[in-house]
Amino acid sequence: MSGATVDGASAAPGEAAEMAGAVQPALPGRLVVVGSVALDTVETPRGRRERILGGSASFFSTAASYFTRPQLVAVVGADFPEEHVEFLRGRGVDLSGLERSEGRTFFWEGRYSKDLASRTTLDTQLNVFADFRPRLPEAYRGAEFLFLGNIHPALQLEVLEQVRRPRLVAMDTMNLWIETQRDELRRVLERIDLLVINDEEARQLADRHNLPQAARAIHDMGPRAVIVKRGDSGALLFHEHGVFAAPAYPIEEVIDPTGAGDTFAGGFMGYLARRGDLGPAAVRVAMIYGSVMASFCVEAFSLDRLRSLSPQEVAIRFRDFQELTHFEDVSLD
Amino acid sequence: MSGATVDGASAAPGEAAEMAGAVQPALPGRLVVVGSVALDTVETPRGRRERILGGSASFFSTAASYFTRPQLVAVVGADFPEEHVEFLRGRGVDLSGLERSEGRTFFWEGRYSKDLASRTTLDTQLNVFADFRPRLPEAYRGAEFLFLGNIHPALQLEVLEQVRRPRLVAMDTMNLWIETQRDELRRVLERIDLLVINDEEARQLADRHNLPQAARAIHDMGPRAVIVKRGDSGALLFHEHGVFAAPAYPIEEVIDPTGAGDTFAGGFMGYLARRGDLGPAAVRVAMIYGSVMASFCVEAFSLDRLRSLSPQEVAIRFRDFQELTHFEDVSLD
Repeated sequence: MSGATVDGASAAPGEAAEMAGAVQPALPGRLVVVGSVALDTVETPRGRRERILGGSASFFSTAASYFTRPQLVAVVGADFPEEHVEFLRGRGVDLSGLERSEGRTFFWEGRYSKDLASRTTLDTQLNVFADFRPRLPEAYRGAEFLFLGNIHPALQLEVLEQVRRPRLVAMDTMNLWIETQRDELRRVLERIDLLVINDEEARQLADRHNLPQAARAIHDMGPRAVIVKRGDSGALLFHEHGVFAAPAYPIEEVIDPTGAGDTFAGGFMGYLARRGDLGPAAVRVAMIYGSVMASFCVEAFSLDRLRSLSPQEVAIRFRDFQELTHFEDVSLD
Repeated sequence: MSGATVDGASAAPGEAAEMAGAVQPALPGRLVVVGSVALDTVETPRGRRERILGGSASFFSTAASYFTRPQLVAVVGADFPEEHVEFLRGRGVDLSGLERSEGRTFFWEGRYSKDLASRTTLDTQLNVFADFRPRLPEAYRGAEFLFLGNIHPALQLEVLEQVRRPRLVAMDTMNLWIETQRDELRRVLERIDLLVINDEEARQLADRHNLPQAARAIHDMGPRAVIVKRGDSGALLFHEHGVFAAPAYPIEEVIDPTGAGDTFAGGFMGYLARRGDLGPAAVRVAMIYGSVMASFCVEAFSLDRLRSLSPQEVAIRFRDFQELTHFEDVSLD
């Protein structure tokens, strides 16, 4: 079913990351992501690109690589360009869990509306992803932080069987699984800490339009916390300490929104893994770093903006988010 | 055309306001609002109410009354219930500019969709509003702060002719005027400081979907600053100091969104008039107080939530907004 991993020629841990300018602590909390690595053909009002790097695990791990050394589990086909493997490796992503199978890589093609508010899927070819059974390398099983990207709930459950005792398990899902695999999805939800989901899917899962109500209903399904991603309206965190609202960074030239949600999740989980603290203050900062990374993602096709993105630019945009939201503590006299 | 004002029996300035628990400084910057006072029949998923108090100037002035003593210019008909006049007077609103004409009060009827995201106008009867020519009492003409509610641009221009030298002129408008009175609207825009407008109307006015781009295009039409109201996605301020994002307060039980935008504007302008400072820090806090007042508005039909709202509750929700948005200054090490 699955072939060899692609990581035979991996650089020594840390070395490649240093070359890429990644900022990584000596002992980050171990972060594992399971998801898709794909080739996408994307058309937006700003252009069209064919067979570019995509997939939830690609976006997630690249964003997380600014904070820690993420460990990736996914599958690609024989057609997957080596340059993409080199890119991820160069970002310091641990690829010992990336299988290369015979056949073709998962392919998605989509077109965005003129206002970028919606998109149409034109083609989906599961290819090697159809038979994907995630297998965590032994070195991944002690993961402290685990992100289950948007894959079949049955596979998400299989991953949960392979980790020992993670401190934080987060997941994403999509309308397809909500509609067709609701029972299995509910079984996963009972076992995770945090659901990271977009607003329309939150409404669909909870069968409620009002987002605070939807978050409460999802909380009752299991997760202690829910993050609702709202695109250019930002993201809301609902948890036992209340609600936190992260704005979206106002961007005049959105080139391609693909992967922004997974990039958000990668920045969020990457920061938490780096900080090793799950307190409410840390989680708020993680929401902002997630938003920071997502704001860069949409500035170019695929992960192209992150190819040149420096840690200094990340730090500057974090300050821009402070500037965007800060107001004085002025009580009425 | 217009008859007597309704303020013959007004309480001494400040007295009624004190009774209502309004917090008002000794010398607020004078704030004038020109707009509609209406009777609305509203149907939302939470119920139906007939001929309740509505209109942009009603919502605006009631919200502003928590910060200053707003001066209202509008017209009502012979059918306008005295209890509504008493309510506004009790809030400390100066009604010497409220005319009572023969005929019937401006009437609007609308129905909201199940998700409250859209509404259908079922009936509009201009009635006495059809012949309304705003006339500012002499005592209003030294206004420091002026809000031109959503009325015909020609009337907005007439108001501008009647004020001496306001420090801040803000206005609202709507799709009807954007579609039918664009030239006259552009003439008003050249003469004001701040446009407060909802997202769809901003896009329509600027002919651009992207909000930062739309705000820039509107800025080029005249206003130094643009506030884009986005309903439950909050509000964005674009001005020479950059962008500020105010979130919406997450509310589980929205009863009636009518008037939330005017209530936002009333809280915003009321706070600025009270503080008498137009610096960037003050304007940010004003955005939050506007959001605070709007968050209460939607919790009941008409202005009902503000009938019982105490200054203490306003102060508590301001702190809730701090809690909703605050995050630590944590740079990457």
